[in-house]
Amino acid sequence: MGNYAVIMAGGKGERFWPWSRNDFPKQFLNLIGERSLIQQTFDRLNGFFSPEKILVVTGKAFLPLVQEHLSELPRNNIVVEPLGRNTAPCIGLAALYLLKKDPDPVMLVLPADHLVINEKAFLSCIGRAMELASNEDVLVTIGITPTRPETGYGYIEKAEPALAKDPMVYRVQRFVEKPDNQKAREFLDSGLFLWNSGIFAWKARFILKKIKKHLPLLYKHLQEIDQYLGTEKETEALAKLFPKVPEISIDYGVMEKEPKTLLVQGDFGWDDLGSWAALAEHSPRDKNHNVSKGKHLSVDTKDCLVYGQEALIATVGVSNLAIVQTNGIVLVCSMDQAQDIKKLVNQLKAEGMEKYL
Amino acid sequence: MGNYAVIMAGGKGERFWPWSRNDFPKQFLNLIGERSLIQQTFDRLNGFFSPEKILVVTGKAFLPLVQEHLSELPRNNIVVEPLGRNTAPCIGLAALYLLKKDPDPVMLVLPADHLVINEKAFLSCIGRAMELASNEDVLVTIGITPTRPETGYGYIEKAEPALAKDPMVYRVQRFVEKPDNQKAREFLDSGLFLWNSGIFAWKARFILKKIKKHLPLLYKHLQEIDQYLGTEKETEALAKLFPKVPEISIDYGVMEKEPKTLLVQGDFGWDDLGSWAALAEHSPRDKNHNVSKGKHLSVDTKDCLVYGQEALIATVGVSNLAIVQTNGIVLVCSMDQAQDIKKLVNQLKAEGMEKYL
Repeated sequence: MGNYAVIMAGGKGERFWPWSRNDFPKQFLNLIGERSLIQQTFDRLNGFFSPEKILVVTGKAFLPLVQEHLSELPRNNIVVEPLGRNTAPCIGLAALYLLKKDPDPVMLVLPADHLVINEKAFLSCIGRAMELASNEDVLVTIGITPTRPETGYGYIEKAEPALAKDPMVYRVQRFVEKPDNQKAREFLDSGLFLWNSGIFAWKARFILKKIKKHLPLLYKHLQEIDQYLGTEKETEALAKLFPKVPEISIDYGVMEKEPKTLLVQGDFGWDDLGSWAALAEHSPRDKNHNVSKGKHLSVDTKDCLVYGQEALIATVGVSNLAIVQTNGIVLVCSMDQAQDIKKLVNQLKAEGMEKYL
Repeated sequence: MGNYAVIMAGGKGERFWPWSRNDFPKQFLNLIGERSLIQQTFDRLNGFFSPEKILVVTGKAFLPLVQEHLSELPRNNIVVEPLGRNTAPCIGLAALYLLKKDPDPVMLVLPADHLVINEKAFLSCIGRAMELASNEDVLVTIGITPTRPETGYGYIEKAEPALAKDPMVYRVQRFVEKPDNQKAREFLDSGLFLWNSGIFAWKARFILKKIKKHLPLLYKHLQEIDQYLGTEKETEALAKLFPKVPEISIDYGVMEKEPKTLLVQGDFGWDDLGSWAALAEHSPRDKNHNVSKGKHLSVDTKDCLVYGQEALIATVGVSNLAIVQTNGIVLVCSMDQAQDIKKLVNQLKAEGMEKYL
C-alpha cells in the first residue's frame, strides 16, 4: 500500500484575468513569490512524497506547461484530461491510474493553486489525514480554522471528535455552501465551522466504491475508460469517452452524501487565492501598503496591488485598486469588487472578444 | 495696416502626460474631437485671417509637427524658437517678424491649445479686440465670463466700462494670480472678475514699445536679433542670441504694469484644458458619464475618462478616475488630483527616467 499525492491542475482561474489567460491559467503564474503556484504545491509535497509518487491531472492544452514547470515529475505521472469535467471525474480517473501502479494506493487529493504559508503545519496535517485514510476505509477531508468571516468559501460544520487520542479529528455534521455576510459571521463566532479546503485523503479503491454508489453513470464510463489506460489506445479512448462523463464536483457528488466522513482540522495559513484582493492580503506590502510587481511610480497611492508586465504604471491619488497590465490589456478594479472580474470575462465572451481571454 | 494672428505653439503640456510626451505635446493631440488642438485653433481663425496672415511660433523640435498639422500654413509663417523662453520673448519675436512683412501690423496673440466651443462668439469677441487695438495705441486682453469657482486660472478684475457704446469693454482694475477656493467663490459671486484667457490684441509697434519700457533687457536682445531676421544668418543668430533673453511671461512682464489696458469680456465656452479633469468636463459622455477613446470594457464604472492607445482597458467598480494607456505607460489618476501629475513628471526626471517623458 503506497501513498500518493494527486495534484489537480486543470483549472482556468478566470479570477486573475488578465494576468491569467485561457492558455496560461492561475496555477502556472508566480502570483506570490518567484515560483509558480503549481511549483510551490509540488515543492511543498516533495519530501513527503517522492516525485514518482506524485500524479498531476491537467488539461490537454496545459501539458507542456506542466512539463516545463515540474521538470522532476516523470512524464507518466501526468494524467491528461481531454477536457475539464470538474473534480469527481478527475479524481476517479486519477484513482484508476494509481491502481495501474499499485494494488492498494492511498491518495491525497489537492488543488495546484492554493497558498500555504506554514508548510510544516501543512505536512503534519496531511500526514495525519493520510494515516487515517490508510487505517480504514474512510473518506477524509481537511477543514481550515477560519480567521475571518469569509463569504467566498464553502464551510464544513464539525460534529463530535472522532478519536479520543486526537483532538484535531472530527466527524462531519454537514457541508455548507458559501454563506452570506451574516451567516459567515455566525460561523466564525460559533467556532464550529471550518473552511472547506478541497483537500482530501482516501484509498483509491474506496473513493471508486463511493463513486459507484453515488455517481453510477460516472462509474460506468470510468470502467470503460479503464480498459484502455496504459495501452496505446489510451489517448484516443479518453478523447472519445471522457466527454461523456457527467460534470460534477466531488463535494456535491460524493462528500455531501457521506455522513461518515472524517474531518481533520488544519491551521497552516491557507488561502485558495480566489481574487486579486485575496492575493493582496497575503503579499508583502511597502510602506504605503501597496503590492507591486514590475515598474510602478506613485503619488499619494495606498492599499493598491499594481502588477505590470511590460508597461510603467503610474498612479496618482488612488487607493484600494487592483491595477494589472499584461500583453495588450489593462485592468483597473476596485478591490471590493474583485469577484466581478467574472462579469468582465462574460462580457468578453458575449462580445466575441475571446482573444483577450 | 494688416491684421495678423500669432498662435503660440511652444508649450510642453506635461499635464496630459502620458498622452502628451516631450516630443508630442498637448497642442498636437486630438484630445477632443478628431482634429488636434492646434488644427482646431487654426481652423477657428481661418476665414477671419487668411493663412498668409497667421503666424505660428513654436519650438525647434516641433517644426515638423506644425508643418504636418497645418499644411495650409506657408513655411515662412512659422517662427522657430531655438528654446522656450515663456510668452514675452515669444510675442516680442513675433512682433519683429510681422514688422518685416508689414509697416504697422495689428496682432492677435493666442495659445494653440485652448478649447473654444462657440466659434461665432469667439470670432465676434476677437473682432472687437482687433478693432480696439487698431483704433488706438492700447493693449487689449480678453477676459472670459467665469462659470465656476475655478482655482486653476488667473483672474482679471473689471473696472469701469471703457466705452459708452459697448457694454463688453472695460478698463482693468487688476490682474490676480490663481486664487484659493474661497477667493474663487468670492470672485464668481461678485460678478466683477473674469478668467484671464491669455488672448491679447495690440499693434506690433506698440507691444514692442511696452517691452522696451518694462523689459529693457529683453528689448535690447530683440533689437540685436532683429538685424538678422529674414537673412541667411537668422537661424544661427537666433540659436546664439535667443538663449540670452530673460524667461518671463507677458502677463507678469508687461500686462500687470499697464493700468490702461482694455478688457473685452467674452463668453464663448472657453477652457484652457489644463488637466484630464478639465478635458473630461468638456467631452461627450456615455450613459454612465464616462469618456472613452480606444477599447474600453466596463462593469460598474462611472465618471471616468478612459483613453487607450493600443490596449484594451477593462474597469470594474471604479469612478472618478482618469485612466490613460499609451506606448508603454499606464496612468491611473484620481480626477481630484489631476494636477498632481506634475509630481509624477518631476519624479520621472529625478529618477533619470526621462525616456518616459
